[in-house]
Amino acid sequence: MAQRPRVVIVGAGFGGLAAAKALRRVHVDAVIVDRHNYHLFLPLLYQVASGLLDPSEIAHPVRTALRRARNVDVRMAEVVSVDMDARQVTTSVGTLDYDSLVLATGSVDNYYGLMSVERRACGLKSLEQGLSLRSQVLRAFEQASVTQDENQRRCLLSFTVVGGGPTGVEYCGALGELIHRVLPKDFRHLDFSEVSITLVEATDMVLSTFAPRLGRKAADALERRGVRVLLGRSVTDAGESELVLDGGERLPAGTIVWAAGVQASPASALLGLPVQRQGRIAVTEALHLADHPEVFVIGDIAESRDKGEVLPMLAAVAIQQGKHVARVIDDRLKGRPDRAFHYFNKGTMATVGRACAVAEVGPIRVNGFIGWLMWLGLHFIYIIGFRSRAVVLISWFWNFLFYDRPVRLIVDYPEVKRATTKTRR
Amino acid sequence: MAQRPRVVIVGAGFGGLAAAKALRRVHVDAVIVDRHNYHLFLPLLYQVASGLLDPSEIAHPVRTALRRARNVDVRMAEVVSVDMDARQVTTSVGTLDYDSLVLATGSVDNYYGLMSVERRACGLKSLEQGLSLRSQVLRAFEQASVTQDENQRRCLLSFTVVGGGPTGVEYCGALGELIHRVLPKDFRHLDFSEVSITLVEATDMVLSTFAPRLGRKAADALERRGVRVLLGRSVTDAGESELVLDGGERLPAGTIVWAAGVQASPASALLGLPVQRQGRIAVTEALHLADHPEVFVIGDIAESRDKGEVLPMLAAVAIQQGKHVARVIDDRLKGRPDRAFHYFNKGTMATVGRACAVAEVGPIRVNGFIGWLMWLGLHFIYIIGFRSRAVVLISWFWNFLFYDRPVRLIVDYPEVKRATTKTRR
Repeated sequence: MAQRPRVVIVGAGFGGLAAAKALRRVHVDAVIVDRHNYHLFLPLLYQVASGLLDPSEIAHPVRTALRRARNVDVRMAEVVSVDMDARQVTTSVGTLDYDSLVLATGSVDNYYGLMSVERRACGLKSLEQGLSLRSQVLRAFEQASVTQDENQRRCLLSFTVVGGGPTGVEYCGALGELIHRVLPKDFRHLDFSEVSITLVEATDMVLSTFAPRLGRKAADALERRGVRVLLGRSVTDAGESELVLDGGERLPAGTIVWAAGVQASPASALLGLPVQRQGRIAVTEALHLADHPEVFVIGDIAESRDKGEVLPMLAAVAIQQGKHVARVIDDRLKGRPDRAFHYFNKGTMATVGRACAVAEVGPIRVNGFIGWLMWLGLHFIYIIGFRSRAVVLISWFWNFLFYDRPVRLIVDYPEVKRATTKTRR
Repeated sequence: MAQRPRVVIVGAGFGGLAAAKALRRVHVDAVIVDRHNYHLFLPLLYQVASGLLDPSEIAHPVRTALRRARNVDVRMAEVVSVDMDARQVTTSVGTLDYDSLVLATGSVDNYYGLMSVERRACGLKSLEQGLSLRSQVLRAFEQASVTQDENQRRCLLSFTVVGGGPTGVEYCGALGELIHRVLPKDFRHLDFSEVSITLVEATDMVLSTFAPRLGRKAADALERRGVRVLLGRSVTDAGESELVLDGGERLPAGTIVWAAGVQASPASALLGLPVQRQGRIAVTEALHLADHPEVFVIGDIAESRDKGEVLPMLAAVAIQQGKHVARVIDDRLKGRPDRAFHYFNKGTMATVGRACAVAEVGPIRVNGFIGWLMWLGLHFIYIIGFRSRAVVLISWFWNFLFYDRPVRLIVDYPEVKRATTKTRR
């Protein structure tokens, strides 16, 4: 029996995992490499960071997700270098030869050079960051409940989320509900009128990729949840207890969450290739490098175009691209030409809180309760594994009924502030 | 209105939390102080460490557990010192005056001076330890699956649990099922005949506090789960990859779990009092210090006697003592004399694995499936909170049906090996 062609996939996010699953039916031997032993359902990370879900409800072991893909092996390792001439990937646990390489290392926070903000802020791109943020928020309330120093208390109770895209809006909504609906029951002696939650967005609307009407609805829904929405303002600096906005205004800010920008993961350096906007790597319409047809780049790290437009950094794009790459590899084995990738936009949505979400599916634009039901159904289908689904449903149902947050544990995690440069590799 | 007497409770384990809850109906103002913001259901920690349960299923926020106790305040803080003359507790977040003090700081691992073992082993006394052990076990398999070095692989796949009490037996059983029933599906290319799980017990039987017949049944059940049970052997030293037993025998040991001994938490040093066996503090039959009737000491840290016998370090003892202290404080407010504490032994049980447990309730001794059903019912009742109960039940049911472990995430936690001296304070 001739040896099967070897495919190495780097990254077990949405793109890499979709490629690995789709390769199950292709006559190859594949290896998927990731720093973690789990695939993270990033769209729900904000719920871990706000105490609603447990880590295992949004993180699923890669090996388990690929149990049925008997031709796919899993390595928990860091990729150290890629030699495209020798067709070899060097990892922290050994070297892998490949016939095809799929690079799907995702994206990391982008602070646009604002080092002072990067030092103080927490992103929402990794499980460690989500857990660390949850502890930070809860610890702030523990500390605020015992301090006699009014300035310190005001700082501890100031939460600023920078960036009004889906991540920022969803986390603000969840944080508003956690703080104003749940925590007053636990901190009876604390004056919750001292709490401030602020969303800072540089453009003149939140959720700018949605229809303007939905953005306005979302901003209104946030305001109703006690979130102050600052539009057209950008962050220029951060001190120990405050954020500085353009124009010099200072906001007290004990906790700063960064959701204002992402860039492709620095894995492009592994390939030694020039990068495009946001650090992405330009690919052909069949998703491979122009000079190296055997090297595919997909998901957030790829700058791919459809009908001339650069595709956004979305899970849906990465998943479809992962499947497409498996198809191209299969086609090549069968002597067929490469097909071009086309993105099918099934719609986008963002949830603002309990029974409130905005959704845009083609010409249909909904918000409020109907939007939330759509959001609920969609995410429920996408979450991996029966147990997670049942547990997540119980958590959501419980929260819906009682405004409670089951997961409010402060467990210390190591310093993960440096995730900007190594969130995924 | 006259000021109410102030009660300070140190420690939110079984004893401290029971005291705080019982003080709800007593005319006092109470404060409970703990290093963590959660109460830990320690008897199920081994299930977190073996990937069956999530942290939030066995840890519950102290504030939430005490929501109905409106006269009890909560402080997340470390206790720095106690001044019994001034009746004052100094914590990391300020000073608390008391009229009555309840010291309930529990116990920590006891390595009996075996420093080399302490450096290498992981205990099972804190949530951080349980999570750290879970990561260590899963990481060992990830590493074993890629190493070419046979000696290294053998070491990585060697798991030794020291101590054949309930903790050691329960963890061995859970580890045996995780490794032999679940992980082979995830690590298809690994030769599981290279795995060794060893339980080392210094006496000539496991579960020595149970009837001898039950101990033998438990040992048999462990052997059936692939655990080698070494009786009458004690550990004398540990190297980088091995354990040394008395007589000089060397066991390869990548992962070492310490369940061979506990001692009272070092909080006794706070009181500057002489300690008894296992570092415990001697108390009167009404559970207070002989020289300081306003200072109560309960749970694992107290050496209390009932009918002349020193009571064991058990959750049930601590819970009953916590309730008793609240009763004594109430009695004193009403001018009644102190009552003596009597322990009501409702029975003890230990689970060996799926559908197998031993239980001893008075003269009734059961094992196997019936024992397991009793264990299931009892623990289910004791776990706090509806959501936890539902989630735990789903997890157990899922595991029972499919031999699966939902929580197999490797998330790095900070170094917690030093928990010996500060597990709880």
